[in-house]
Amino acid sequence: MRLPRIAVTMGDPAGVGPELCLRLLAEPAVRRFCVPTIFGDSGVLNGVADRLDWPKPPASDIRDIETTGDLAASLVPGKVAAQCGAAAYRYFTAAIDEALAGRVDAIATGPINKESLHAAGVPFPGHTEILASRTKSQRTCMMLTAPEITCSLVTAHTGYREVPSLLTTERILDTIELTAAAMARIRDKKPRLLVCGLNPHAGEHGLFGDREEERIITPAIEAARAKGIDVAGPLPPDTAFLPKHRKETDAYVCMYHDQGLIPLKSLAFDEAVNITLGLPIVRTSVDHGTAFDIAWQGKADATSLLRAVELAARLATC
Amino acid sequence: MRLPRIAVTMGDPAGVGPELCLRLLAEPAVRRFCVPTIFGDSGVLNGVADRLDWPKPPASDIRDIETTGDLAASLVPGKVAAQCGAAAYRYFTAAIDEALAGRVDAIATGPINKESLHAAGVPFPGHTEILASRTKSQRTCMMLTAPEITCSLVTAHTGYREVPSLLTTERILDTIELTAAAMARIRDKKPRLLVCGLNPHAGEHGLFGDREEERIITPAIEAARAKGIDVAGPLPPDTAFLPKHRKETDAYVCMYHDQGLIPLKSLAFDEAVNITLGLPIVRTSVDHGTAFDIAWQGKADATSLLRAVELAARLATC
Repeated sequence: MRLPRIAVTMGDPAGVGPELCLRLLAEPAVRRFCVPTIFGDSGVLNGVADRLDWPKPPASDIRDIETTGDLAASLVPGKVAAQCGAAAYRYFTAAIDEALAGRVDAIATGPINKESLHAAGVPFPGHTEILASRTKSQRTCMMLTAPEITCSLVTAHTGYREVPSLLTTERILDTIELTAAAMARIRDKKPRLLVCGLNPHAGEHGLFGDREEERIITPAIEAARAKGIDVAGPLPPDTAFLPKHRKETDAYVCMYHDQGLIPLKSLAFDEAVNITLGLPIVRTSVDHGTAFDIAWQGKADATSLLRAVELAARLATC
Repeated sequence: MRLPRIAVTMGDPAGVGPELCLRLLAEPAVRRFCVPTIFGDSGVLNGVADRLDWPKPPASDIRDIETTGDLAASLVPGKVAAQCGAAAYRYFTAAIDEALAGRVDAIATGPINKESLHAAGVPFPGHTEILASRTKSQRTCMMLTAPEITCSLVTAHTGYREVPSLLTTERILDTIELTAAAMARIRDKKPRLLVCGLNPHAGEHGLFGDREEERIITPAIEAARAKGIDVAGPLPPDTAFLPKHRKETDAYVCMYHDQGLIPLKSLAFDEAVNITLGLPIVRTSVDHGTAFDIAWQGKADATSLLRAVELAARLATC
């Protein structure tokens, strides 16, 4: 059996992405389940290796992506910079194009910096939005999964204030369906989902909020049930994540970023993998940021990237 | 030394409050640190004891509060009812008045049902708002505390959508100050606080949201520091609760109900106690609801009520 080919994007060159890629390539276990290729910059990777006195990575494991200027010479570790945002964007779009062409089987992405991306004039707030646009996908969503807890997000990188206006029954139903399909593949069984309400106490029958639960969320749950999906809710967000519910829930459908990511990171940080659902290609990601405060110091933990590559390889072959 | 006298309100008669009060009175350890009196209805308490075949509570431990009608004969366990909401409200206001008069030293409250309260025409969404009004307190806030994690809420029982318009620098500063003072008493040392942002990634320098972090939250943190309070933030809400931050944080200041209660209940359910800060009296509460699905069945766990009474007794004497 041929091992899946995984494009691993280096992420922001000034962040912890390069050193995580070096750790990944140095980990023999990885080669047992995939053929990894770093989409990035060998000058930067060698520069980090030099600085940390680590062995240089094999040139054959690196796909050098053309960017403007000599990054390795000019970048400052741990700093927001347009050139770094532009480079991270190029590594990622090159990987997407290779995956769409079938020349790699999946993508696992290193962390990018949203401010650097923005400084480079990239008109997308993050990976998920770039993917949706470049692969022309209509329905996508971000899911984070760990053995202990999995959360899908109906809305993600948007201000607190904009969330209610972005919630529609259709979008919630899409998220439920995408999550049910993904969890069926990951867990190899019919999954049980739980949908959170938007308001405290899930609105307590109209006492708090504008009855978003009754007007928008419940119709999506009913439509999903009519399609045969095993889904409960809307539950009060604060009790939804109690151990008794976690035990019987394969994945949570959350209305906004922090509703899902606060419990996920409290309970399973360093173990979670980020997956974009609804794409024609497989894409997973680390669930942490560029960690500029410790970049290029050799302190960053590669567990999340290893898990992301592992899950990408599994999803590419099942 | 005289033991503190604690008024324990029975909460909604149709919920788990009455059976929790029976468990409390049957627990000998309680008498070592306080003199408890149940503010409620001995007919209801005896009715629950009969149904569960538990011993009847000592009449001297119960303060019968006058309500309309014969609750014990007419109420249906586990159902929303105006008469139950009205009764729960009366138990509570009687306890507040006794505390204000100095005839009890603190109040620990059993769970009320917000819908029953509403059905009874009580013009307050919950305990905290009743207390603020009846004790004429200008600055109050709700704090939940457990050994593992403590969270104060700048806004609490309000719809998701209304939160941004309720956040002001003054209100956040009030919450920081009240929390710092309370934690200094509880932990007997200068506490370290951490304030969460409102938006995902704390707005990531304006990428998400309306710069509520820069405009509203940061000025409150700076004002608190100028008053000598040890306070960090605003932090991205999803990483604020990682173990490394929890270890060095005595209390979190959270912008909205679920931002604080999701991590608190995920990490410390059954152990947390709810305290209202900023009152002229001491008031603690269970951190769970009326649990109508298991009411009058003898299944409810009294740990949270025991902890609430214990903390009330401690705060009343320090």
